[in-house]
Amino acid sequence: MKIQINQLNPKSLGFSFNKGIIIDCLKEVNSDVLSVFPELSVSGGILYNSTSYNDLFASSSHVCDNLISEKRDLIFGTPIEIEGKKYNSLVMIEKGEILALATKKNLSPLDIGFDKGEGVETINYKSQVLGFGFLEDLKDFVEKKTNIDILIICSNTLFYHQRQKDLLDELVVLARKLQTTLVFCNRTGAEGGFLFSGGSFILNSKGELCGLLPHFDYKSQTFETTALKPIFQNSPSKLQNLYQALTLAVKDYFHKNQIKKAVLGLSGGIDSALVVAIAVNALGKENVIGILMPSEYSSDHSIKDALDSAKNLDIEHYIVPIKECFEQCSNTFNSILPNQTFNVAEENIQSRLRCVSLMWFANKFGAALLNTTNKSEAAVGYGTLYGDTSGSISILADLYKTEVWELSKYINDQWLKVNPNSTQVPIPWNSINKAPSAELRPGQKDSDSLPDYDILDRILEEHLDNYRNSQEIVEIFEKESLRADKTIIDRIIKLVRINEWKRRQCPTAVKVTKNCFGIDRRVPIS
Amino acid sequence: MKIQINQLNPKSLGFSFNKGIIIDCLKEVNSDVLSVFPELSVSGGILYNSTSYNDLFASSSHVCDNLISEKRDLIFGTPIEIEGKKYNSLVMIEKGEILALATKKNLSPLDIGFDKGEGVETINYKSQVLGFGFLEDLKDFVEKKTNIDILIICSNTLFYHQRQKDLLDELVVLARKLQTTLVFCNRTGAEGGFLFSGGSFILNSKGELCGLLPHFDYKSQTFETTALKPIFQNSPSKLQNLYQALTLAVKDYFHKNQIKKAVLGLSGGIDSALVVAIAVNALGKENVIGILMPSEYSSDHSIKDALDSAKNLDIEHYIVPIKECFEQCSNTFNSILPNQTFNVAEENIQSRLRCVSLMWFANKFGAALLNTTNKSEAAVGYGTLYGDTSGSISILADLYKTEVWELSKYINDQWLKVNPNSTQVPIPWNSINKAPSAELRPGQKDSDSLPDYDILDRILEEHLDNYRNSQEIVEIFEKESLRADKTIIDRIIKLVRINEWKRRQCPTAVKVTKNCFGIDRRVPIS
Repeated sequence: MKIQINQLNPKSLGFSFNKGIIIDCLKEVNSDVLSVFPELSVSGGILYNSTSYNDLFASSSHVCDNLISEKRDLIFGTPIEIEGKKYNSLVMIEKGEILALATKKNLSPLDIGFDKGEGVETINYKSQVLGFGFLEDLKDFVEKKTNIDILIICSNTLFYHQRQKDLLDELVVLARKLQTTLVFCNRTGAEGGFLFSGGSFILNSKGELCGLLPHFDYKSQTFETTALKPIFQNSPSKLQNLYQALTLAVKDYFHKNQIKKAVLGLSGGIDSALVVAIAVNALGKENVIGILMPSEYSSDHSIKDALDSAKNLDIEHYIVPIKECFEQCSNTFNSILPNQTFNVAEENIQSRLRCVSLMWFANKFGAALLNTTNKSEAAVGYGTLYGDTSGSISILADLYKTEVWELSKYINDQWLKVNPNSTQVPIPWNSINKAPSAELRPGQKDSDSLPDYDILDRILEEHLDNYRNSQEIVEIFEKESLRADKTIIDRIIKLVRINEWKRRQCPTAVKVTKNCFGIDRRVPIS
Repeated sequence: MKIQINQLNPKSLGFSFNKGIIIDCLKEVNSDVLSVFPELSVSGGILYNSTSYNDLFASSSHVCDNLISEKRDLIFGTPIEIEGKKYNSLVMIEKGEILALATKKNLSPLDIGFDKGEGVETINYKSQVLGFGFLEDLKDFVEKKTNIDILIICSNTLFYHQRQKDLLDELVVLARKLQTTLVFCNRTGAEGGFLFSGGSFILNSKGELCGLLPHFDYKSQTFETTALKPIFQNSPSKLQNLYQALTLAVKDYFHKNQIKKAVLGLSGGIDSALVVAIAVNALGKENVIGILMPSEYSSDHSIKDALDSAKNLDIEHYIVPIKECFEQCSNTFNSILPNQTFNVAEENIQSRLRCVSLMWFANKFGAALLNTTNKSEAAVGYGTLYGDTSGSISILADLYKTEVWELSKYINDQWLKVNPNSTQVPIPWNSINKAPSAELRPGQKDSDSLPDYDILDRILEEHLDNYRNSQEIVEIFEKESLRADKTIIDRIIKLVRINEWKRRQCPTAVKVTKNCFGIDRRVPIS
């Protein structure tokens, strides 16, 4: 049997676009091929409250009718309403007739508004027993112990570190247990902060990998199930995955929202230097605009590093000194409430005026602002709300500072592999190597108020990702002879808690771990 | 049997505070009384991801031990971990012995991280059959058809319009069906944007109301179940509920976060005039600071109306003209990118500089900023991100503009009932009566770019609360002979959709309807 795996990148609620890309795939192959498409190909998703609207089901139904009229063999995902019940469904069509329907039974927290369905489906197709269903419902096949020749799984699997490998391992076991050829068809693309990693594959009945589609990219590929040959494929490294994932997140955010240009502030620090490199990779250098906004507390090397960043990437950039704006605001406010000493209020004015400036440029260019906050800062609230926490999408929100450094080095190293003699690396080495500082007062360093980032990030990782409390972290640190006493650990955990209200107002975070702020993690704010 | 209903206002994760208020209630009555407490009295709630931490269960267990050692009769709500399973539980204690445990079976979307429990419990207590459990699990009693003498329901019921009345009606039917005395013990207070309305009650076995605790306030009251007498109680009006609810939301946000003072911008418009009146009611006039920030586009009456508002409420207030700050920013930006025409970019500078100013005052006073956005504006994106959308908590985010007017009139009318000759009403009549304007350019009126608010709000209500699409709304409007053609309705619905990304960055909204932005409503952002 010939199976075409279509690793689509549909648009949320983009029915006619989605119909178009599905039909394009059908046209690529002959009518003896079974074309397989991901979960919710018709509507895109995450759908959230859209399931409450009749439009969703009417528009989906309209696309389904169009696909049926193509008189081809295919399996695709779509929302369907049947007798008042709303299902996340897979439809199997043979030559213009609906052959079978699988409705999702084990709903995930993202299947908001869908009703519980019947689970997986098994049918006879071209003298073979074909099973199909959603990833969440696979246990049913094991329980039913049906003999299946070919198993097709259509999915919308969210990306996070390790997920791709874990999933492959899991499905290899399943293919062996059921002794079946297994097709895993996953979508790619980004929607808001969610990433879908693609990486669709086909396994033979020994569980051997016989085909792997790329990660984070659209691809359509056809396999003959009677002629599958094992392949060997290295898993992409964590940093390779991260670079591709973040690039795709930026690209899809802008393309799907029909925004062409991105604006961001370049401080000379590592976070903005990394974000601008990713943005150029995603949108092209002609669509990224860097704004340097030095204040009187900015060091000379900051300005130089920021300029290097803009020049190395060859992007349009402007220098907007904020000194006079700062003085005017400070004088105006102090004239109303005199005799105030310089404190966090003045530090915040600088950060917020930078936001005013960036948004002015964004408005003038019809651009969107990229946020550069990392997960370490977001965790402890090291940032000014309506200042440097602003932006349309937060690219690094799920990367600890130590990972920001790692990824930056990786990007430069990859660049140097291709351009071994280049001195203009995408991310200035000085931005990577210098001690981080917010530069909101003279000589300020992050390490004045925070432990070193390797310690901070380890505390945060244990607390946020492994859900450990203070005492448990102390024990881990003692066991591994790491520096940091209970006072510091307690202070960090308290900072995480009291800054929840700030994080609630931060831009959509791009999720690359299991526990991303905003999307996955909530704690009380009062 | 004597039953004490304790309508507590616990703190999220405030274990020792919560233990204190529970023990205080026990001390108020003799040891022959059965004391009843709400769901999650020990831990407070909404707990979100806190259930992933061992602390939650260790601290809860510690409080439980303390309560057991009081050697009294009581039923209270707490998280409990049993053999690795985490339950939202009700514990019944008799003279220092655990008599029974009910664990929640039908988990709500807010019971994140809890495992599915066993449901309701029935026990013999003082020669009576006593049933107890969670509101979500009540169907079990009907299905089991047990004869129960007294039914006790412990709850954390979220407030929204109509909920109190619907709930009472529902439980009256249940009491009649089971022919049982029914105790409904609900919590009060606010947590982040969530409101718990209290209004605990007791019904006799005919379903007659025999006792009702206040709405939105702490109260402890004891009833003799053999001597219940029907009472007649008028339901509070929608506006009375709203005023109490919003006042409590502000009060608890500040008290629970240990913030004393509130800052807000006074524009002379109705939204800020209403919020400042609510803030004074919640926090006292000595804790509310009004900042007037006129620009060159502010009309004379705006400044007068804003001053009237501050003076009528007798609050500290400052006038901070933003003209010079605006000019400095505008000149700086235009010198970098010359020959720009005045457009939305300049309108936004004004709104954002007001935010810079407000946050400076908030920082200097150690105060929190109150947001004044209403639901109509939030829906169509009529507001400047990092400008007037900023603040710690958004008081009016779940009130349409027409409701803002209604509530303002109600507050003035209530004031005049007590002070019939006063000319200084809490909300200046002129703020209520004038045409609304953002005053970001000469002569600007909201109605320049939006339909009249009665039409806009009706479209929004049908779309947001009743999940109707454009065509369905057109049909309703035709049927009711309302003005507004499909073009306008389509435009409004499109505005709702394209502004989702802005709303994701807005402050925590106080929820007073079934479909509040931020908490309940999500649609895709790309």
